[in-house]
Amino acid sequence: MNSILINGKKASQISVNDRGFQYGDGVFETIACKNRSLIYWNEHLQRLNNACSILKLAITDENTWLKDIEKIIKTHDEDQVIKLIYSRGEGQRGYKLPDPTEPVRIVMSSPMPVYTEDMYHQGVSLMVCKTPASSNSRLAGLKHLNKLDIVLARSEWSDETIFEGLMLDDYGNVIEGTMSNFFAVKNNSLYTPILKRSGVNGIIRQRIIDLAKNDNIVTQQIEIKLDKLLEMDEIFITNSLIGLCPVNQLESNRYKTGPITRHLMMKLQQDIKGREL
Amino acid sequence: MNSILINGKKASQISVNDRGFQYGDGVFETIACKNRSLIYWNEHLQRLNNACSILKLAITDENTWLKDIEKIIKTHDEDQVIKLIYSRGEGQRGYKLPDPTEPVRIVMSSPMPVYTEDMYHQGVSLMVCKTPASSNSRLAGLKHLNKLDIVLARSEWSDETIFEGLMLDDYGNVIEGTMSNFFAVKNNSLYTPILKRSGVNGIIRQRIIDLAKNDNIVTQQIEIKLDKLLEMDEIFITNSLIGLCPVNQLESNRYKTGPITRHLMMKLQQDIKGREL
Repeated sequence: MNSILINGKKASQISVNDRGFQYGDGVFETIACKNRSLIYWNEHLQRLNNACSILKLAITDENTWLKDIEKIIKTHDEDQVIKLIYSRGEGQRGYKLPDPTEPVRIVMSSPMPVYTEDMYHQGVSLMVCKTPASSNSRLAGLKHLNKLDIVLARSEWSDETIFEGLMLDDYGNVIEGTMSNFFAVKNNSLYTPILKRSGVNGIIRQRIIDLAKNDNIVTQQIEIKLDKLLEMDEIFITNSLIGLCPVNQLESNRYKTGPITRHLMMKLQQDIKGREL
Repeated sequence: MNSILINGKKASQISVNDRGFQYGDGVFETIACKNRSLIYWNEHLQRLNNACSILKLAITDENTWLKDIEKIIKTHDEDQVIKLIYSRGEGQRGYKLPDPTEPVRIVMSSPMPVYTEDMYHQGVSLMVCKTPASSNSRLAGLKHLNKLDIVLARSEWSDETIFEGLMLDDYGNVIEGTMSNFFAVKNNSLYTPILKRSGVNGIIRQRIIDLAKNDNIVTQQIEIKLDKLLEMDEIFITNSLIGLCPVNQLESNRYKTGPITRHLMMKLQQDIKGREL
């Protein structure tokens, strides 16, 4: 069962005049909640607040968020996905910011998706989407509510053997999956797309970059064209619910779960265990 | 007073799970309603339906829209702005399209903004925004609900003597104003930005292009860099509420309302009069 709190109160509807609905004027976070503990809460809160600064949204203090989240968590026993949405709130017609602005905070929970052991051992299959990732240097990295590019990319397949779709920008640069960040390994070096104009700077993406650097794995954020992926030794994807998952196939190209992927998967598991407090 | 119909019924709230709110997964139209008559209804409906095809949204038939709109119009005597929003409707967590999909149609009205005679005679003042216009070749031209770039651009000024902000993409191409399309005249030829990767293909923009061609005015949709605008003889903006409005200033550069601008303003007025049926 799903539960929703809007500004701390049980509710399920928002105003049609909410700018989140009118313009996608807001941000969100998707957080894994395991054993009633939020995974990487500090990192999620920091990313949310950073997005608020860029979008000129007033920051809601940590305790207010946590009080709402606690209320939701305690109504469920099983592991959950906690989604926070923070919208600009109601406004009149037109793009000008409302004055005063009264942002709306939403906390909702849904059941944790089931990920099989097989996925992590054998890897998953990816396709390349035709829908380009949207570009905007000001919005790049943020987890905002403008997701039409992702919606269209995700609508390109219904074959359940395809786990994820890889998106490129209009200039042929690999950006990310529809719900995950993307990594590749070549000659023991780690590569991930630089998110200068597109993409979401995932929490796990950043953890993987940091964990790899800690272990002296050469790590680069660079522009990657699709044809370069054919030469790669290992490929994997990351997000806050899945963690790290190896990729065994991209279109017709096959990949093996290699040593760097296995090493970083283990390191991430340890790191997450250390945070479950 | 504002009125709102959701799926034909008086209402003011939508579900938090509506994908319009979660992802900006929908489209809209803003239509001038003068003397209880919708200006360029056929063109607006055609653009809306075209956007639906691209976004894989089921098309709602014309009569259903018109029945809702009639209900709203007849409650007001004065001229109005009719806004249509068409969202994907409710969905579960995740980007995958809901199956079945039940789109939500919204019709709302608000008072027509006041535009002074002075604006059309003297022209208005524009600034250049720092926020880039988002780029996505698949979404270009559509009037969709992903408007964070516009929101941020519009937040850059509060000086009421500035009427509009001009937006460029990340590569320095002039795209459009925050609420209008952009035209420039040089040596009696008409230029407007080509909307290959960004921008909204405005109804008035398209009318102006057609009216200019009818009168054998050389008209080109091209990539325009900002420095080229300094050399231009005339500049104007268009949208469905304003029609055509001359620009007398862009940052510190001054422009005069020239003969092509005046000619097209007259032609547009005639064209609109012919449509008020």
